[in-house]
Amino acid sequence: MPPKKTFAVLGGDLRQIHLANALSAREDGSVIYAMFLEKNGPLSKKIKQSTQVEMILPQSDVVVFPLPLLDNQGLVSTPLSDEKISLESCLAHLSPQAVAVAGKVPPEAKTAFRTMGIPLYDYLEREEFAILNALPTAEGAVEIALRHLPFTLFDASCLITGYGRIGRVLARLLGAFGAKVSVAARGCDDLAWVRADGFTPVHFSQIGGCLPHVDLLFNTIPAVVLDEEKLSLLRRRCLIIDLASMPGGVDFEAAKRLGLQTVWALSLPGKVAPESAGKITLDAIFNILDERRGSQCQMQP
Amino acid sequence: MPPKKTFAVLGGDLRQIHLANALSAREDGSVIYAMFLEKNGPLSKKIKQSTQVEMILPQSDVVVFPLPLLDNQGLVSTPLSDEKISLESCLAHLSPQAVAVAGKVPPEAKTAFRTMGIPLYDYLEREEFAILNALPTAEGAVEIALRHLPFTLFDASCLITGYGRIGRVLARLLGAFGAKVSVAARGCDDLAWVRADGFTPVHFSQIGGCLPHVDLLFNTIPAVVLDEEKLSLLRRRCLIIDLASMPGGVDFEAAKRLGLQTVWALSLPGKVAPESAGKITLDAIFNILDERRGSQCQMQP
Amino acid sequence: MPPKKTFAVLGGDLRQIHLANALSAREDGSVIYAMFLEKNGPLSKKIKQSTQVEMILPQSDVVVFPLPLLDNQGLVSTPLSDEKISLESCLAHLSPQAVAVAGKVPPEAKTAFRTMGIPLYDYLEREEFAILNALPTAEGAVEIALRHLPFTLFDASCLITGYGRIGRVLARLLGAFGAKVSVAARGCDDLAWVRADGFTPVHFSQIGGCLPHVDLLFNTIPAVVLDEEKLSLLRRRCLIIDLASMPGGVDFEAAKRLGLQTVWALSLPGKVAPESAGKITLDAIFNILDERRGSQCQMQP
Amino acid sequence: MPPKKTFAVLGGDLRQIHLANALSAREDGSVIYAMFLEKNGPLSKKIKQSTQVEMILPQSDVVVFPLPLLDNQGLVSTPLSDEKISLESCLAHLSPQAVAVAGKVPPEAKTAFRTMGIPLYDYLEREEFAILNALPTAEGAVEIALRHLPFTLFDASCLITGYGRIGRVLARLLGAFGAKVSVAARGCDDLAWVRADGFTPVHFSQIGGCLPHVDLLFNTIPAVVLDEEKLSLLRRRCLIIDLASMPGGVDFEAAKRLGLQTVWALSLPGKVAPESAGKITLDAIFNILDERRGSQCQMQP
Repeated sequence: MPPKKTFAVLGGDLRQIHLANALSAREDGSVIYAMFLEKNGPLSKKIKQSTQVEMILPQSDVVVFPLPLLDNQGLVSTPLSDEKISLESCLAHLSPQAVAVAGKVPPEAKTAFRTMGIPLYDYLEREEFAILNALPTAEGAVEIALRHLPFTLFDASCLITGYGRIGRVLARLLGAFGAKVSVAARGCDDLAWVRADGFTPVHFSQIGGCLPHVDLLFNTIPAVVLDEEKLSLLRRRCLIIDLASMPGGVDFEAAKRLGLQTVWALSLPGKVAPESAGKITLDAIFNILDERRGSQCQMQP
Repeated sequence: MPPKKTFAVLGGDLRQIHLANALSAREDGSVIYAMFLEKNGPLSKKIKQSTQVEMILPQSDVVVFPLPLLDNQGLVSTPLSDEKISLESCLAHLSPQAVAVAGKVPPEAKTAFRTMGIPLYDYLEREEFAILNALPTAEGAVEIALRHLPFTLFDASCLITGYGRIGRVLARLLGAFGAKVSVAARGCDDLAWVRADGFTPVHFSQIGGCLPHVDLLFNTIPAVVLDEEKLSLLRRRCLIIDLASMPGGVDFEAAKRLGLQTVWALSLPGKVAPESAGKITLDAIFNILDERRGSQCQMQP
Repeated sequence: MPPKKTFAVLGGDLRQIHLANALSAREDGSVIYAMFLEKNGPLSKKIKQSTQVEMILPQSDVVVFPLPLLDNQGLVSTPLSDEKISLESCLAHLSPQAVAVAGKVPPEAKTAFRTMGIPLYDYLEREEFAILNALPTAEGAVEIALRHLPFTLFDASCLITGYGRIGRVLARLLGAFGAKVSVAARGCDDLAWVRADGFTPVHFSQIGGCLPHVDLLFNTIPAVVLDEEKLSLLRRRCLIIDLASMPGGVDFEAAKRLGLQTVWALSLPGKVAPESAGKITLDAIFNILDERRGSQCQMQP
Repeated sequence: MPPKKTFAVLGGDLRQIHLANALSAREDGSVIYAMFLEKNGPLSKKIKQSTQVEMILPQSDVVVFPLPLLDNQGLVSTPLSDEKISLESCLAHLSPQAVAVAGKVPPEAKTAFRTMGIPLYDYLEREEFAILNALPTAEGAVEIALRHLPFTLFDASCLITGYGRIGRVLARLLGAFGAKVSVAARGCDDLAWVRADGFTPVHFSQIGGCLPHVDLLFNTIPAVVLDEEKLSLLRRRCLIIDLASMPGGVDFEAAKRLGLQTVWALSLPGKVAPESAGKITLDAIFNILDERRGSQCQMQP
């Protein structure tokens, strides 16, 4: 349990609101400021709101920046505020004892923090953050499938490409629905896990034999693995859900020409389960703070 | 495998379209007519369309009426047609050798068939039809939950009232998501199954102790079990999904007064998975025809 | 919570020892006597031992007789004692206010209790007792399979006959091991549940097509369904585990002639998990007592 | 599919018998010799037996040595033969074109092969071999637990130390039985997987809080993590099953002093499921041969 502290939760979307609420619900005596988050409703009454960085940041022990840290214009991402703030303005007011956390930090921003001597941690780089975010991602993917398909997941033929974090959680969920789940991967070790976990392993080089029977295709690989040749093997009834970040794994132009229905689902955790995503972020932040203090990973049971 | 026959699939919604398609996909030489189903698209080209009951019905061995059989005005339910047809007109043209099947047949209609000497079977009364329809119902319920909740089903506290067909399938699905699943029921036997299946049993008389912690409440009991007193114990964050047919299980007026979010989800199979619902209906119809011929239940593997 | 009482736990095997211990662990002020259970060790020190029926029974509110109530000679079953006691001697000393519970009570014994005006309940007839006992039975069946087979349950082809309580729990366990599970049953409703639960339904009339591929065959039906004709379709590698009570479901003579390995596993709960079996019995007894007092089924969570 | 070849399966235990049988069942025209395996029965008739290394080895394309390669005396491990053979004698007769595979090869033996210019692959070092062997290991561990415990796995409190391959497969199995499963690990990533997979994560530094409630403790970590201090926190009813290879994870002396029941279960796959273990080995060998030919991992579906 970290000692009582002052936290500034600055910018970002609904996840940051829920993160601030979860911080507040700990009731450990910490003081919490929500900054540039005034537009969206359900903020706990115990949280103080402010946009005055010159007042709040100098007294903050931990500053929680958003994911992503910056918007398209290079300013701190503040979609839930009418005001804008530059990273420089924030840096100028941070206490020398402060610790900063953020998600998806570009190299220039890392340099800026380093120059100021403020330790900055990118929680997106933490493995446990990625693992736990696979849960809302997989749930969001299932929701999309349920909404679009005229048939049940029960008995549907599903193919997942990739057996990383998302592939693994998603395969288990689909299997629980009674779907027939195949997983395409390359490594012998991934394919062995697919088999040990009760699904049908398909080596990527043999995916062509699988595609004509698939009802539902999930891609989790961030490289265009589903090109026109492969897409042309699919039936028109097949729905493609791409869960991979840029550039995605599907040749969307080709899919359109072939009349295939595709959904490119990006950043699902913040969209489908911002409350859970906020809590997962908070857990990662506490792990960061604990490790700084030399104590060990505290998984919330 | 039944001998080759002439089928008329008459009226109804998307489920009947898919039922006709599934019949056609069997390729057993049967002739299939789709009647009063002209509005919606994906009918197989091998199926003949007609609205001429005087031509088609006399030559039909099996006539598949819809679920429900009749609409509000007492005519055969034909939502996918611009034309209307009375049950009397149909009966007048049925062959004396025909077999009729339908869903939710009112007593007067049963009498009318009996008077004509035409055997009529209500597939809604068949247990295997109800069991298999619990699958699309539970999937639809999960979709509603995923769409409305700002948090994951993983780790959510779910309470299901009733442990019949839907309760049992739904509990398993929610458990697979990592939800904490409690089930409220009355009988010692139901409660023992809840426990043996790995969920938390709650006797209905003690449901009050459970309600303040619930994130997601599914009702499957067709009687108003969730009255104002019980609803008042729920948190505002709790979503209520009522899966029970008329009159439902929730005092919706009281829920509104209390600011609780409710969804009354009726007839989910036809809405969320008409293709699967059509196939389930077809399987039940073949079981009916098999039993008439004295042979045994053929479960499609 | 029943009021504080005097219990006599009389005769029976290890299950009764564990039942007495579980009673004692409730620490609700009840007084517990263990009678004719002196041979086996792990009896809690808070339990008083006695064989003096004339002293103990008149003051006992609840007398817990064993399962089965009587041994081959018609005396109360007391395998853990060197002494013998007749049912008549017990009845002669029971208080007129006492309640008696027992398992597998023969009709004559029922009559004897009725004549004395002592209410007697056979917990073996309670549905929740049978459901929860399916858990140790299925675990015992899995243990036998694991011990005898030179291959893993993972990927093994298993066939279960019957989809009652034991069939259902066992199918789920085998499925979790990654076995391929088929279930043979007769009713359309049972076969629909098999399918909905994710296993392969086989109508009993078509079991012949299945048998040549089976690695592991579990029978749960108490009638000789596996006769020589069916057994002759099995491979020599196939292990048969019969879980049905007398007369069992296998023609054991024929199986021997055919060189098939069979295990007839009777009364598994008391053998493989006497502690759990004792607790399940105790729960059923409390349900009986609660119902007598007009209160409702209390499922232990 | 590899081209037709001559295989010598030389030495080892039942696994090698089953491996040879599985090779033979492929019916791809390969010739198979079983060497020093004459003692145990179920060898397919299509396999030729011989102990004449000077005849067989020169014509063998692939020589399958056992796991472990050598016995205590430094000879090739041949427990199913009355004859002994040195590795040198084998090496002297190997064809220069041969490929050798073996398990647990000591460094000197590796050097000997290298000196002879014969490529040698240790399948024990292959990840997919280790993953798939976790299945029989976990099944064996469950069998031991079922055999020793007087209560059901259902509802038992289980603790697993380590969340590698065995920990992960075992946790899933125990969870399917309805056990309450906690897993102790050190890394944030392992603990996040434990949580995502639905079990209770326990940081190793906090294991003390867990131990007093555990019914069943599985160790998978090959270092003495369960020392006297930790063992002294366990109840006497707790069964300890150590699945870790030498030196094991339990201070067995201390456990004995404390009256705790321990089972050190080594090399379970070969003991509980030699047929499956043989097939897993064969799959790994084919992956080795495929990779040599430049083709990709072929996971048997």
